[in-house]
Amino acid sequence: MPEPLLLTDLRAATMLPGGAAYGVIGDAAIAIEDGAIRWVGAARDVPGDLADWPRRGLGGRLVTPALIDCHTHIVHGGDRAREFEMRLEGASYEEIARAGGGIVSTVSATRAADEATLLKDALSRVDALIAEGVGCIEIKSGYGLDLETELRMLRVARRIGEVRPVTVVTSFLGAHAVPAGEDADRYIDEVCLPALEAAHAEGLVDAVDGFCEGIAFDTAQIARVFDRAAALGLPVKLHAEQLSHMGGTALAARYGARSVDHVEYASAADARALADAGSVAVLLPGAFYTLRETQAPPVQAFREAGVPMAVATDLNPGSSPLGSLLLAMNMACTLFRLTPEEALAGVTRHAARALGLRDRGEIRAGLRADLAVWNVETPAELSYRIGTNPLHTRIVGGQS
Amino acid sequence: MPEPLLLTDLRAATMLPGGAAYGVIGDAAIAIEDGAIRWVGAARDVPGDLADWPRRGLGGRLVTPALIDCHTHIVHGGDRAREFEMRLEGASYEEIARAGGGIVSTVSATRAADEATLLKDALSRVDALIAEGVGCIEIKSGYGLDLETELRMLRVARRIGEVRPVTVVTSFLGAHAVPAGEDADRYIDEVCLPALEAAHAEGLVDAVDGFCEGIAFDTAQIARVFDRAAALGLPVKLHAEQLSHMGGTALAARYGARSVDHVEYASAADARALADAGSVAVLLPGAFYTLRETQAPPVQAFREAGVPMAVATDLNPGSSPLGSLLLAMNMACTLFRLTPEEALAGVTRHAARALGLRDRGEIRAGLRADLAVWNVETPAELSYRIGTNPLHTRIVGGQS
Ligand SMILES: [Zn+2]
Ligand SMILES: [Zn+2]
Repeated sequence: MPEPLLLTDLRAATMLPGGAAYGVIGDAAIAIEDGAIRWVGAARDVPGDLADWPRRGLGGRLVTPALIDCHTHIVHGGDRAREFEMRLEGASYEEIARAGGGIVSTVSATRAADEATLLKDALSRVDALIAEGVGCIEIKSGYGLDLETELRMLRVARRIGEVRPVTVVTSFLGAHAVPAGEDADRYIDEVCLPALEAAHAEGLVDAVDGFCEGIAFDTAQIARVFDRAAALGLPVKLHAEQLSHMGGTALAARYGARSVDHVEYASAADARALADAGSVAVLLPGAFYTLRETQAPPVQAFREAGVPMAVATDLNPGSSPLGSLLLAMNMACTLFRLTPEEALAGVTRHAARALGLRDRGEIRAGLRADLAVWNVETPAELSYRIGTNPLHTRIVGGQS
Repeated sequence: MPEPLLLTDLRAATMLPGGAAYGVIGDAAIAIEDGAIRWVGAARDVPGDLADWPRRGLGGRLVTPALIDCHTHIVHGGDRAREFEMRLEGASYEEIARAGGGIVSTVSATRAADEATLLKDALSRVDALIAEGVGCIEIKSGYGLDLETELRMLRVARRIGEVRPVTVVTSFLGAHAVPAGEDADRYIDEVCLPALEAAHAEGLVDAVDGFCEGIAFDTAQIARVFDRAAALGLPVKLHAEQLSHMGGTALAARYGARSVDHVEYASAADARALADAGSVAVLLPGAFYTLRETQAPPVQAFREAGVPMAVATDLNPGSSPLGSLLLAMNMACTLFRLTPEEALAGVTRHAARALGLRDRGEIRAGLRADLAVWNVETPAELSYRIGTNPLHTRIVGGQS
């Protein structure tokens, strides 16, 4: 553990709600001890017992909480560049399917990849997020759709948290797609639920996820997965209302889901249900952009109901090959009309809540010292600029 | 000048038309001498007199021509993050204008910035492009709207080409906007044309540009600028048909323009006029995305007429704060439905043509050794991935 350290000559966007925009402190100092924030406030108010701590000046730069990507499929085999190209060359979905495209191709590639290959490929994507100031990444299974591969994906996810200075939160997503030629109910009962039990027994599952959609599973099937999660004492979350209104949001709210993700087709009633359940709405503009969707999520209804909105990459090889959380912030503003402050809250405070983490997401005494230091004048610039990375330094657990 | 060098163990996307997709040579070698490509071909065909040259293996990586960003406003003062934020917070255009927003704010900030400040700010953006394999950048004036500042912007543009290993091609864009309170005709005759003469006398002008739009100049005013360019022996280009159909494309074609840029509202007749004139259509999806436009350029009409399509960032602080040419490629595919091969041609072969450069844009003997080496399997990946940068090495004038 490094020495206590007093960060000075900085502006802090603490993201504490209820005060100034972004919780900004104009001329701030942050005291770090044992990997945690010991004190934060105006530079002129530094307590006497911290005054002789070693100091590190940040040249007036902006400091935010380290970013949190709360929805990714970052562990997967292969890519889908050829499918992307075929579609733009005018191939039909049938032709793409015949050429082995679609989620089936990612399932095949993931099943065929060993742990070392999955890890190496994922790390190149993880490193790009770390280079943007990300300190915590949620990672889902869901491209195995068999017991062995689902567990391998989650083991790789855990391994990423060991070999990189980043917190990994896992989600078991056995209910991601129906394997080709399988019956959905049989798959849930005979493959998905046993895989969940096995993954949980190995300590690989932090939460249980599913995909409630016409092309995936219905609410009754998802409910069986959620019931098993509840029996195991695991929190749940759901991909819901992405392409149509299937009722997944209301179902997830009844189960007290940590988050409901995508939610383009959620209704005002869904928004109220999420607010009552304390669930987070996770917005995924990368998939909306890539699929050229036109129905944006009901942002105003979420605001009115008081639903916290998170923003994530949904990094996956098919519908969102988006490797930049900063770009997801810009897309959330440009495409979904979030304000830059909502976008930054969406990758800090609200993303932490979506993952059930109470120890990060704001700059506040007692939380982890997970910080990002930026070469920008104002926090709005993080959402305003497109495709560039103004990170100066990332500090995670007090270490840069 | 470095030693002759033989690049080996690579796949080359030469971008030579008429053969394999992307002009790919699967197991290729590239011989570089005196900053130029001496030979390129299949590794098994390396001529005997090159066989004992020093070799550099590229680990099987993909090599493309270095990228060319053929439309930028990269030299400018200030940013417009606050305006971006105000708009998302619900401010009207009037409120933003009253708060000093809009192009006026960039003109004020640019006029107030000295050469050193403009250079320093621009270099941070130039360096981000260089890090993506860009070897050539077009840079416009147009935020001065007075003689002194227009010339200062162009001097800074030239200076960028001296202090960074990148070719800079300048465009005089005095006819970018009507200064607040000015009469457009008087501005053209008494400010813009004298500034053009002065800039040309100082050797600062490679081409003459304008903005033909209801909010800027009409075709008669642009024609006066183009007439003066012709008298000075300078090529022309035009921002046209971005927000409405004003007839700028047909005008530019009559003047044999190198390129006509934006062109969302161009017609099939415009496309044929461009083809007859040998002009390039420069697509700028970053502005389309940022302004949430719905009218995409007539890509199919350009294809049918045989109009070469280039793709550029339009990097500017208002309508396209897009600092990534790779992302512009993805947007050109996702939003405008270009194929990945068209997108790559748009930032190599066709971008070179838009700038009147015959010495780059393909991998071919006799051209400059401007190359980009990528950590990707296929050239389609360069357009498929969103917000990440797979560049391994950039080679410009034979030097990396
Ligand atoms: Zn997902
Ligand atoms: Zn422009």
